[in-house]
Amino acid sequence: MGGVAEAGRGMAADIAEQPDVYARMLANLEPIQAVARRVAEHKPRQVVLTARGTSDHAALYGAYLAEIRLGIPAGLASPSAITLYGARPDLRDCLVIAVSQSGESPDLREVIRVAGEQGALTLAVTNAPESPLAAAAQLQIDIGAGKERAVAATKTYTAELLALLLLTEAVRAGGDLPESERTALQELPELAARALADPAAVETAQRYRFANQLVTTGRGYAYPTAREAALKLMETSYLPALAFSGADLLHGPLALADPEVPVIAVVGAGPGGESMHQVVAELALRRADLVVVGAGAESTRAHLRIVTPAVTERYAPLLDILPLQRLALALAVARGENPDAPRGLSKVTATL
Amino acid sequence: MGGVAEAGRGMAADIAEQPDVYARMLANLEPIQAVARRVAEHKPRQVVLTARGTSDHAALYGAYLAEIRLGIPAGLASPSAITLYGARPDLRDCLVIAVSQSGESPDLREVIRVAGEQGALTLAVTNAPESPLAAAAQLQIDIGAGKERAVAATKTYTAELLALLLLTEAVRAGGDLPESERTALQELPELAARALADPAAVETAQRYRFANQLVTTGRGYAYPTAREAALKLMETSYLPALAFSGADLLHGPLALADPEVPVIAVVGAGPGGESMHQVVAELALRRADLVVVGAGAESTRAHLRIVTPAVTERYAPLLDILPLQRLALALAVARGENPDAPRGLSKVTATL
Repeated sequence: MGGVAEAGRGMAADIAEQPDVYARMLANLEPIQAVARRVAEHKPRQVVLTARGTSDHAALYGAYLAEIRLGIPAGLASPSAITLYGARPDLRDCLVIAVSQSGESPDLREVIRVAGEQGALTLAVTNAPESPLAAAAQLQIDIGAGKERAVAATKTYTAELLALLLLTEAVRAGGDLPESERTALQELPELAARALADPAAVETAQRYRFANQLVTTGRGYAYPTAREAALKLMETSYLPALAFSGADLLHGPLALADPEVPVIAVVGAGPGGESMHQVVAELALRRADLVVVGAGAESTRAHLRIVTPAVTERYAPLLDILPLQRLALALAVARGENPDAPRGLSKVTATL
Repeated sequence: MGGVAEAGRGMAADIAEQPDVYARMLANLEPIQAVARRVAEHKPRQVVLTARGTSDHAALYGAYLAEIRLGIPAGLASPSAITLYGARPDLRDCLVIAVSQSGESPDLREVIRVAGEQGALTLAVTNAPESPLAAAAQLQIDIGAGKERAVAATKTYTAELLALLLLTEAVRAGGDLPESERTALQELPELAARALADPAAVETAQRYRFANQLVTTGRGYAYPTAREAALKLMETSYLPALAFSGADLLHGPLALADPEVPVIAVVGAGPGGESMHQVVAELALRRADLVVVGAGAESTRAHLRIVTPAVTERYAPLLDILPLQRLALALAVARGENPDAPRGLSKVTATL
């Protein structure tokens, strides 16, 4: 039978599992530390990340981590330069990381293959240790999130984030995750469970039942969260959702924001969050329909807030996306869609 | 007086000037060649570009050029890692390029300042040679596009593209633009004038008079064009316009495409364009309202096409955006907006 009551059950189960996925990964650090030791020995002078869709947002988080925590210039590369135009950049001293839940994308595999030929140290971060992508890379991290039920990625996204965080902090310390970091992260599963228990996200979804479009925004570590929230809303509710960095929003597209266009702002407790206060104030001036999500939400004047547990800002992406996943799920169901099997979304990209 | 007939006159004049801006830049190659010689001597192992808004799309084009034409890994950096989180990446052997029409953005200036301290060779590409950004960089290219009348950038965007193209090709040849490239590019002003004379773009604008949203897509060199077209539509018509790489569109957001959501696909004549044929076919299957723009449009089955002059694919961004700028202008005027002074858009970003 199925029907409305069943719609989204898979996605709901995936979302609910995230605290356990975190706990499992934190209980089994050695495989990531082994990779971190190889990376630390290699001393890369540059990090290039490549990914598609949801994993692209995890890769963006990884780029921030590499620059801020490791002092290594990092950026996202478009596979097409290599796969379509035959670019063969000199990648010696470079770490190339492909992030892919399925490990099946032929274009990412080709980037990793070429990167290896061009002298890079290559790493695949996947949920599929037997995949062609994992096989093509010199190093691999299995995020071990278990099979994802819904087509829209949730637990594999946050597992990718945590894998990249653990890798970065371990590389920073020469290979082993420092005790301080380990202690701080032990709380993560419980904090995630708390963020998921808050009913505010599901209540907020009702607000967007008849929205025609939506804008999300964030800066720094919160920007990947804003991008991923927008994609999740698009994939499951077919709602055009535009994600902007807070700085870009102020520049141009702020003109889009008026009382008809709801805005979700991700505001952490830290430099990224502080820089969003100007954005939130401008949005309030324009009487935008504003919901603020994050540990920094409490310090804003927005009257609609989804407050997440206060953590060091670089951990916030592991928590702030959780209510937004629930929001996307609840909204899709409210709009009569089945987020477990959205039209037009397939689990694997097969473009070369 | 003014009113509807006057609205957009500044933007129309800016758009019309682009062939002259190209001709002027091509007649005065030496300043760019001088910069190219410095870059070629420096032999950067990595190119990092940083920009905001429209200039971000020029920077993306620059990253493709660096990877494909120079074999140097390249990527876009978010200023916030440096300006908000105090990242101090090791940038020796690195060329850092800031692209900014106004040269006034304090965050880009700060990135250039820090990059210089961290050992990078720094270059500012601006329309404002006396700006703080130009002063902060070791090298600068003045795009010489003249004062832009409208707030929405058009001629400064294409001048940034041409500056980055000329720089890349000159660096590739050791400092002086090769004769073959010079000859090929001599035709550019006339081809641009031809692309601007085609009435198809303005006719197409009527089609979107009542659209609620729009999707743009392209791959490879055409991806910056798709992104810039989307931004221009948002800035001037407040129409939510989502830009996707063709590969990403196929993966997830294709679900958005149905007969209610018009799609503009940029299809060049080359590997990027060829890879779009699968995307165009999928969109046709879903009965998307599809307009194909570019030299490759003729070979697609889309019944609405804006064909631009056939050129080497890496030159296509200099032509394919032209009808899309005209489309954005015509649509804004049709919707009763004044694209010369859009609500909420300012010429300078002042975020740090």
